[in-house]
Amino acid sequence: MGIIVQKFGGSSVADPDKIKNVARHAIDEFKAGRQVVVVVSAMGKTTDNLLALARQITESPNPREIDMLISTGEQITIAMLAIAIQSMGYDAKSFTGPQVGIVTDSSHRKAKISHINDKKLRKELDAGNIVIVAGFQGMTIDNEVTTLGRGGSDTTAVALAAVLKAEVCDIYTDVDGVYTADPRIVPGARKLDRISYDEMLELASLGAKVLHSRSVEVGKNFNVPIHVRSSFDSVRGTMVVQEAREMEDIVVSGVAHNRNEAKVSIIGVPDRPGVAAQVFGELGAKHIVVDMIIQNVGSQGLNDISFTVSKDDLGEALKLSETIAKNIGAKEVRHDRDIAKVSVVGVGMKSHSGVAATMFKALADKAINIDMISTSEIKISCVISEKDVDNAVRAIHKAFELEAGATK
Amino acid sequence: MGIIVQKFGGSSVADPDKIKNVARHAIDEFKAGRQVVVVVSAMGKTTDNLLALARQITESPNPREIDMLISTGEQITIAMLAIAIQSMGYDAKSFTGPQVGIVTDSSHRKAKISHINDKKLRKELDAGNIVIVAGFQGMTIDNEVTTLGRGGSDTTAVALAAVLKAEVCDIYTDVDGVYTADPRIVPGARKLDRISYDEMLELASLGAKVLHSRSVEVGKNFNVPIHVRSSFDSVRGTMVVQEAREMEDIVVSGVAHNRNEAKVSIIGVPDRPGVAAQVFGELGAKHIVVDMIIQNVGSQGLNDISFTVSKDDLGEALKLSETIAKNIGAKEVRHDRDIAKVSVVGVGMKSHSGVAATMFKALADKAINIDMISTSEIKISCVISEKDVDNAVRAIHKAFELEAGATK
Repeated sequence: MGIIVQKFGGSSVADPDKIKNVARHAIDEFKAGRQVVVVVSAMGKTTDNLLALARQITESPNPREIDMLISTGEQITIAMLAIAIQSMGYDAKSFTGPQVGIVTDSSHRKAKISHINDKKLRKELDAGNIVIVAGFQGMTIDNEVTTLGRGGSDTTAVALAAVLKAEVCDIYTDVDGVYTADPRIVPGARKLDRISYDEMLELASLGAKVLHSRSVEVGKNFNVPIHVRSSFDSVRGTMVVQEAREMEDIVVSGVAHNRNEAKVSIIGVPDRPGVAAQVFGELGAKHIVVDMIIQNVGSQGLNDISFTVSKDDLGEALKLSETIAKNIGAKEVRHDRDIAKVSVVGVGMKSHSGVAATMFKALADKAINIDMISTSEIKISCVISEKDVDNAVRAIHKAFELEAGATK
Repeated sequence: MGIIVQKFGGSSVADPDKIKNVARHAIDEFKAGRQVVVVVSAMGKTTDNLLALARQITESPNPREIDMLISTGEQITIAMLAIAIQSMGYDAKSFTGPQVGIVTDSSHRKAKISHINDKKLRKELDAGNIVIVAGFQGMTIDNEVTTLGRGGSDTTAVALAAVLKAEVCDIYTDVDGVYTADPRIVPGARKLDRISYDEMLELASLGAKVLHSRSVEVGKNFNVPIHVRSSFDSVRGTMVVQEAREMEDIVVSGVAHNRNEAKVSIIGVPDRPGVAAQVFGELGAKHIVVDMIIQNVGSQGLNDISFTVSKDDLGEALKLSETIAKNIGAKEVRHDRDIAKVSVVGVGMKSHSGVAATMFKALADKAINIDMISTSEIKISCVISEKDVDNAVRAIHKAFELEAGATK
């Protein structure tokens, strides 16, 4: 009997009626003869509300205790969903991440799954239960509650699909698939039938909010077919798979943007070996993920180092940078919250020239200034002013002829 | 170093400011050189709100899933309290019931503690932490979340005090001790300095809401001194101890009342052996606690059996009684929600005559009809009409001269 893992995010379980809708999705698959595992997030804004509650006590609560606090959000949802499925006449059983054997490292609030014991899961599935698992959470080997960071429920779902060798991991969202650009910005954006893990990885990490990048990594590593689809209908969404390209001449898959970045610049850094290693080593030690890094070799043996972090991490990154700047004798630290990143992604890019030029020209034609540039084999990203994002995305989408019905 | 266990109920932790107040209580004891364990309930009306959420899905949710759902309430509080204590500069660590090794039987929603492993607790205390434990919850040996029933946080606290051999278990409430009657009904009610476990047990089970009766049983069995006190000041409250009587001639300690009872009568029961055993055996199997039982031997070989249950259990008790009545050939089942119980409690009663007469006369003088009577060595209870409760309590309190300053 095939196994399917379904994941529903916070907006899909925001109230009892929506939870009943999720119950029906699970029961439909169960009736079709599959074993069903459902992974859910906290209801609506529960996580944010709990974080706000903690902030009423202190601005810097202990991460261990925050994990204890916010992991209750998913626990509420799993119980509610089990009750809903049972009320419709089917057997269901809910489990927290710790109960179901999701073991993580001990980085509270950003824990990584180290392994999953599938024994309990298989036993409950074989007993005829629809099994409901709290997303976003796990426990350390010392039985401490951890959470996986924002979007961690996607990772829980794909990781469970991997250990259970599920046929597919359905990620239900409030959009019906992965688009060539955000349809709210580009009305002509086109839904993709298939996309490769690598492209999805770039899109996810670049801010296309449909799928958390860590979940795509797990999907890629264990070759889990991921189906991004809408919880409001049964239309086929976008399949994320190993190789999605059907025709070699499709160069660019989509345009992504991310407003949640901020820039830090350490100005006047003495040009000696090991300085960059020190800066990014210390940021890494604090689990601050750095995205783009640019170093300008300046005059008089002084460099400027600029990098971007998520806006959430800006405060800590700045504090750390100022200490480091003092230690290494740099001149000053500057920062800019009003930036954003736009990117084009596509596997075809590897073997096509001119993609960067097309992108830069599209921005130049709209008089949008490029602050930083970074490239990989399958993407090109530009940091621009946050106010220019919508225009930039539309211009790039048009330049690469990604509109629905467009032909090259 | 002495250990103290403190317990704070839902109204004492209803918001972040009140949680900070609790943090200060814990820190005060820690600074006085004690090892401190704090047990907390869910914040304010959290448990009721979660139950209402589940009822939006179905009127009869699965008890296992309800335990999964409502145990989140205490988990929120423990994290909040740990954050509050840490923000004041002291080390604290929160633990759920399952994490700290509170093992229960598998009766969801009414689980009983079977044992507590104190290893983790002692390790964390010895490491210098104020240890915070979620009240009301535990786990089965199969790692299933259970809850202990209403008032279960008291039981958690006293049980922890027992295994840790604590000097005292402080139960903080919104009243400053145990009174001779509910002060809202009898303005002249007097606070007791000391009371015995046995008397407190009667008062607790009779509806004096300061302390859950199961916690008093645990206290009695393990000889844990329990201090009932107010969370709003540091005034000495009431000590619940083995023997509280200082003078032998104090007969009655207090007057209790309980509005949460309902009466079921099975009318026209054939008078043959085993009928009562069947009725109360089946109620017991459903974990319905029966309080008073009266059997009237009637004419023509037919009896009436009446009993009281908590109003919450009335629906299920009625359903069961009707099935049983049919099976045993009884005539009909009647019920009455509008009853209440008033009781006098006192160890001295054992060796004093006339207590019952004084109580019955006090009620008769107020023209209050007595529906059922039950007695034990240290209490006399009368079921009366719910509307007469306040008058009855005042009259009895006066008859036994329990007012502050009264002398016998």
